Amino acid sequence: MVQLTIKDFIVKDIRFPTSLEKHGSDAMHPDGDYSCAYVILNTEDPKLTGHGLTFTIGKGTEVVVKAVESLMDLVIGVKVNDIINDFASFWRKLSSHSQMRWIGPEKGVIHLALAAVINALWDLWAKMEGKPLWKLIVDMEPEKLVSTIDFRYISDVLTKEEAIEMLKSKRSTVKDREKEIIDKGYPAYTTSIGWIGYDDETRRGLCRDALKQGYKSFKAKVGDSIENDKHRLTLIREEIGYENKLMVDANQVWEVNEAIDWMKQLANFNLLWIEEPTSPDDVVGHASVAKALKPLDIGVATGEQCHNRVIFKQLLQLGAISFCQLDSCRLGGLNEVMAVALMAAKFNIPVCPHAGGVGLCEYVRHICFWDYISVSGSFENRMTEYVDHLHEHFEDPAKCKDGRYVVPKVPGYLVGMKPESMRKYQFPDGEYWQSRRK
Amino acid sequence: MVQLTIKDFIVKDIRFPTSLEKHGSDAMHPDGDYSCAYVILNTEDPKLTGHGLTFTIGKGTEVVVKAVESLMDLVIGVKVNDIINDFASFWRKLSSHSQMRWIGPEKGVIHLALAAVINALWDLWAKMEGKPLWKLIVDMEPEKLVSTIDFRYISDVLTKEEAIEMLKSKRSTVKDREKEIIDKGYPAYTTSIGWIGYDDETRRGLCRDALKQGYKSFKAKVGDSIENDKHRLTLIREEIGYENKLMVDANQVWEVNEAIDWMKQLANFNLLWIEEPTSPDDVVGHASVAKALKPLDIGVATGEQCHNRVIFKQLLQLGAISFCQLDSCRLGGLNEVMAVALMAAKFNIPVCPHAGGVGLCEYVRHICFWDYISVSGSFENRMTEYVDHLHEHFEDPAKCKDGRYVVPKVPGYLVGMKPESMRKYQFPDGEYWQSRRK
Repeated sequence: MVQLTIKDFIVKDIRFPTSLEKHGSDAMHPDGDYSCAYVILNTEDPKLTGHGLTFTIGKGTEVVVKAVESLMDLVIGVKVNDIINDFASFWRKLSSHSQMRWIGPEKGVIHLALAAVINALWDLWAKMEGKPLWKLIVDMEPEKLVSTIDFRYISDVLTKEEAIEMLKSKRSTVKDREKEIIDKGYPAYTTSIGWIGYDDETRRGLCRDALKQGYKSFKAKVGDSIENDKHRLTLIREEIGYENKLMVDANQVWEVNEAIDWMKQLANFNLLWIEEPTSPDDVVGHASVAKALKPLDIGVATGEQCHNRVIFKQLLQLGAISFCQLDSCRLGGLNEVMAVALMAAKFNIPVCPHAGGVGLCEYVRHICFWDYISVSGSFENRMTEYVDHLHEHFEDPAKCKDGRYVVPKVPGYLVGMKPESMRKYQFPDGEYWQSRRK
Repeated sequence: MVQLTIKDFIVKDIRFPTSLEKHGSDAMHPDGDYSCAYVILNTEDPKLTGHGLTFTIGKGTEVVVKAVESLMDLVIGVKVNDIINDFASFWRKLSSHSQMRWIGPEKGVIHLALAAVINALWDLWAKMEGKPLWKLIVDMEPEKLVSTIDFRYISDVLTKEEAIEMLKSKRSTVKDREKEIIDKGYPAYTTSIGWIGYDDETRRGLCRDALKQGYKSFKAKVGDSIENDKHRLTLIREEIGYENKLMVDANQVWEVNEAIDWMKQLANFNLLWIEEPTSPDDVVGHASVAKALKPLDIGVATGEQCHNRVIFKQLLQLGAISFCQLDSCRLGGLNEVMAVALMAAKFNIPVCPHAGGVGLCEYVRHICFWDYISVSGSFENRMTEYVDHLHEHFEDPAKCKDGRYVVPKVPGYLVGMKPESMRKYQFPDGEYWQSRRK
């Protein structure tokens, strides 16, 4: 393999004005401008660059950008092979820097920034190997893959040795599942029908479009008022019928007991899961909600704001979730994502990654392909979120066909954004934002 | 009351080179440079300014400074009376801003930044009333005090009404305890003897000094190696005897099971608590450690990196802590500190605030006075950390006499730093840091 060094980097604050049309609106985030902190790592070879991003929703992106700049002091000048030869140690060097860990640790701004940098390194590694990311990790020997994971604070539920054994046990049938995925793709569900700010006709139209596109699973936002929720869910069930799956998402607006009471009133809509019923930090609260809703056959799902493997460990230990919605850049990049997916597999909880936003669909396709081929070997209760927004800005956008994610073949983690989109939407000096200020 | 507006602000990155002499060294943070993001809020009245800070340990402070700048967009131009007339709403406006909450929520950089801003507002309020902060909140009617607290996500264990009742039940005897605290101060323990990087003679000398100063409780760092821990604890027990209290602090270096095994080997040193045995996010893990160490009479303590009231709620619900070490600026300022103290009181768990660092002793004296006078009414198992470093930089430094915190009488929250210290240690352009670069 070529010997490369991380020579320098670029970090950008990119914001799309999604709040104007209420795309992405929910009870907690009525006016998000879907955004990202976008990182490019440069090496000696102008064709071998690493692209990574962290999804944000507008104001605050500038703080994540600042954190990326601080982290990059630890990355510039490092040889890429030294990183990938002992990726877990490098990950810990960044995630647990003896001074910077104080402003986390492993959470919030500094962990979001870490994800952009770490995922950019995975992008670079995949490009060096000439493989899409999912293929890189599917082909990787279990020992090598597990060597990228830091098991600190999770060894009481999953050891390095167990993780290797889990991957080895699926090894002989990997080729069959890889072929299956390439042929048929991975099941997706759509959230595009469900944003809180849409009017009825827009929503009905979106339901019909999604059905035509082959979707069988749908998610809607709830939590603004019980009347509005019933109205929205009635309308959606009228359009999609009861033969399709319907999930709901409260985006953390409820107290623990309120979540239970509220969901009891929505139970007759036959809902597969309630997502983010309360604070993402409240493992015990989620366990209470899960217990109360079990008799109604409503599962609890959460993860997009669960900040690290320690939170997921506890959600699994307490039986607080039936669906694990890990996030590709809320967690500290792919290394930690794989740790969480392996823990979920041990507890037999399906991984249904969070997506949408900016670049999340582009990331998670790799994760769900690997999860199916190398870890779970099952589609049961497994599906990955898909939202049909902002893909036009990506060089190799995520695609769904017949309601299933399509396998990409281009090398990399594939969140590379088109240069013209970056120029236009860079905040605050891109062409779009300049014209808004006039 | 005068009508004031927050007209503008100053935020500074101040760093002290504590790593040079190993002050503050522990198994996880061997080389911290004790630092802070320091905020000054200016009003129309040059005598009425609000000073707040958030403690950090070097690199990363620049990211917190950036977050303060972003938060201040929501504070500049606001009338101070509008804030203090409905402080809970203002707190939520900042802690749950619909775009910025994504980069938390309520954790890490953005929450540390919030604390500096919120505590600066309390400083300003106390100055407007001409009272030290502790006296402002001791005098405040229960309904008014509780109106400053956001009960989101904790109402399943503590409601607003219960909090008011708890405060009211102590109201008739407040004056007695206030007099007692003014006369005798509040019990402190010292960590100055315990840093991991000190040599034996330094440590023995510090133990003797602390005994002479009247301390009866001592804390030492553990976790670098079991041999070193035994050596340090033997030496300390030789100096302080077994009639004084000794606590230990692992600063998160252990796995859950490792913490249990390790502490069993140190049990014969008769230790009151093990602090931060593992990840601060691991509520379930702390509960396991607490259960395993209960037969050995070792309590579990944590809090300095527990990022919000939701984590403390769960630690209390699961019986995971015997001592609640809330942090005055890890939590989102005094409003959230009071929420946690009230929850701890409901569970009958003593609050022993984390201090040391930069400005933490200056903050926590107010918190422990209020906790004793208005909430707990008891000294049982209650004591507040004191570390004898860096106080020379403060205008109204925390003081201990005969091993007890002394009550200050100057108006404010009293973390105001001397202008010459700020000039010298501002990073990277202060005189000290410029001279280091030469």
